[in-house]
Amino acid sequence: LHYSIAVIPGDGIGPEVMDEGLKVLKAIEESHGGVRFANDVMDWNCNYYLKHGKMMPDNGLDTLKDYDLILLGAVGAPGVPDHISVWELILPIRRAFQQYVNLRPVKLLKGLESPLRYKNHADLDFVVVRENTEGEYSNMGGRMHQGTPYELAVQNNVFTRYGTERILKYAYSLAEKRPKKRLTAATKSNGINHSMPFWDEIVKEVNQEHPGITTNLYHIDALAAYFITRPEEFDVVVASNLFGDILTDLGAAIVGGLGLAPSANINPERKFPSMFEPIHGSAPDIAGKGIANPIAQIWSLSMMMDHLDLPEISSVIMNAIEQVLLDGKVLTPDLGGKATTRELGDEIVRQIYQA
Amino acid sequence: LHYSIAVIPGDGIGPEVMDEGLKVLKAIEESHGGVRFANDVMDWNCNYYLKHGKMMPDNGLDTLKDYDLILLGAVGAPGVPDHISVWELILPIRRAFQQYVNLRPVKLLKGLESPLRYKNHADLDFVVVRENTEGEYSNMGGRMHQGTPYELAVQNNVFTRYGTERILKYAYSLAEKRPKKRLTAATKSNGINHSMPFWDEIVKEVNQEHPGITTNLYHIDALAAYFITRPEEFDVVVASNLFGDILTDLGAAIVGGLGLAPSANINPERKFPSMFEPIHGSAPDIAGKGIANPIAQIWSLSMMMDHLDLPEISSVIMNAIEQVLLDGKVLTPDLGGKATTRELGDEIVRQIYQA
Ligand SMILES: CC(C)[C@H](C(=O)O)[C@@H](O)C(=O)O
Ligand SMILES: CC(C)[C@H](C(=O)O)[C@@H](O)C(=O)O
Repeated sequence: LHYSIAVIPGDGIGPEVMDEGLKVLKAIEESHGGVRFANDVMDWNCNYYLKHGKMMPDNGLDTLKDYDLILLGAVGAPGVPDHISVWELILPIRRAFQQYVNLRPVKLLKGLESPLRYKNHADLDFVVVRENTEGEYSNMGGRMHQGTPYELAVQNNVFTRYGTERILKYAYSLAEKRPKKRLTAATKSNGINHSMPFWDEIVKEVNQEHPGITTNLYHIDALAAYFITRPEEFDVVVASNLFGDILTDLGAAIVGGLGLAPSANINPERKFPSMFEPIHGSAPDIAGKGIANPIAQIWSLSMMMDHLDLPEISSVIMNAIEQVLLDGKVLTPDLGGKATTRELGDEIVRQIYQA
Repeated sequence: LHYSIAVIPGDGIGPEVMDEGLKVLKAIEESHGGVRFANDVMDWNCNYYLKHGKMMPDNGLDTLKDYDLILLGAVGAPGVPDHISVWELILPIRRAFQQYVNLRPVKLLKGLESPLRYKNHADLDFVVVRENTEGEYSNMGGRMHQGTPYELAVQNNVFTRYGTERILKYAYSLAEKRPKKRLTAATKSNGINHSMPFWDEIVKEVNQEHPGITTNLYHIDALAAYFITRPEEFDVVVASNLFGDILTDLGAAIVGGLGLAPSANINPERKFPSMFEPIHGSAPDIAGKGIANPIAQIWSLSMMMDHLDLPEISSVIMNAIEQVLLDGKVLTPDLGGKATTRELGDEIVRQIYQA
């Protein structure tokens, strides 16, 4: 089993956590004879932008297309507006490669405590399926009457039947595989009167094909509150691009923080490479200090193994992470410890060799 | 001091909690010689819609205009699509009367515990200023190619300089009056590339006029997470219509639930009536059982008194609510008690007479 990976460490803490991710990949190769990863590291980031006026070379997407997988750290730096770093790197990759599923587990790992007083591990174990190519993230829109009191900006949310059906079908088929057989769809059709009623209709249509799945449509405001008050109710939560973005940061917060939250940008048809990345950003405030938590990055490798149909390796990685958390001796500051990024990474690697 | 109030109890638990609100108003009149409220109750709700094909009479807004204040319970019933009940009643009122400020405190009352394990009363005391007339809630948009695989829906977010400036100016002047002198603005300019960078620019412009206020611009996903991880940082949080909607339900969840969360829809120029309502909806699942928590409705009356520049009366109401919570003997089921809506209302009224 031989896989090629395009590695984009990015900015800020991106390269720091990526180093630990690459160590984990090497440990997997060495401890699991037979699987091999060929990594090429791309220097596409905000420095690259400051030098070349673009986030990646003109043929960047073409280059990536030939890899089996993409591994991303985090992108964004103080000198470069976010809407450049993101719109010229992350979003084009998600779209060009039809990575229309953004899969984000909300799961309280062993050894961790939720900040929610009355919730425990059994209460916090679900997955958010976020639409990843359209919706509220559209580059359609613009401004008028600049420089006058009548200036305005319009941004179009674009929901296609094609894009909405495919994400809902994916979410329902995921729900079929899980024990609770329950799907929750985020909406806001009481306030947003064109796109969201359309979304609701398609939820109801796709639901027809899955009579065994209990479906709830909750308005995003209430749903965000339910993440706090009754997370135990959820199994598969499906949401539009923006709503999924908000819910998954919130989800990360209730299971221990952004340093722990992974994501998989998946092209289910496998026509194009899928991309694996932590949910967190480049965190310029702690960059260079060597204290970033590498677990989100490493967990995203476990999601990559699932995508490759290597569930045993996926489990080896998760068990290693959980063992280190249970031991509680080598933790980064965000987890209440004093360890460095590297020390925590080394400890996870040690557990992988022991397994 | 004589005020006229248009009372719209609405649907579901709306009329139940409104009854308690009206009892509180009467108690205030009787215990505070000099202030008088003349209430007219409007039967505009989903039943009205089923009978007349509209949520309010054609001259409804004209009728309301002559009142000093509007008091709303909650609107929405299973037989009527939300986007009708809301778009034909609540939203037209907010817009016609230029209630462009939706003020929503996030404050842990005495006697209550936060579901956040490590947060206490000092950590949970801020206010969200939500834009209430434009942004993501626009009726601009539509559908094409219905009945084909190419169907799509477009919804326009409309941000005007006029609308954005006025809400930010209000938020900054509120921040000037508060001790922490800190303002947090919700954005998503990394993902939403026309409207949100425009919003950010205007934040920076208005910030120039308030050099004493520390300003943070946080992306909505991170900000939602920070409501869980570091709520103590916030003082005034200002947000667009949708972001404010999501943040305030989340805010309600971290201070004890939707049964407690009030709101004020304010026209700061006082050219038109302002409207006071709980954040919660009509809750059809518990309607008719007499167990709804009336505190959100009653707290919204305290906000009404602040709006009328009657801070002593506002405090009397809040002290009564907090005393009942501290006593902990007469609580509705959502607060862990067994009392009915009426019993909890009666207890608050008793405290008002005692004050
Ligand atoms: C009923 C609904 C449209 C409304 C809103 O989203 O504004 C409600 O959720 C609120 O927060 O007042
Ligand atoms: C960087 C940003 C545009 C991105 C998003 O909103 O999709 C991030 O928040 C995420 O969740 O992956």
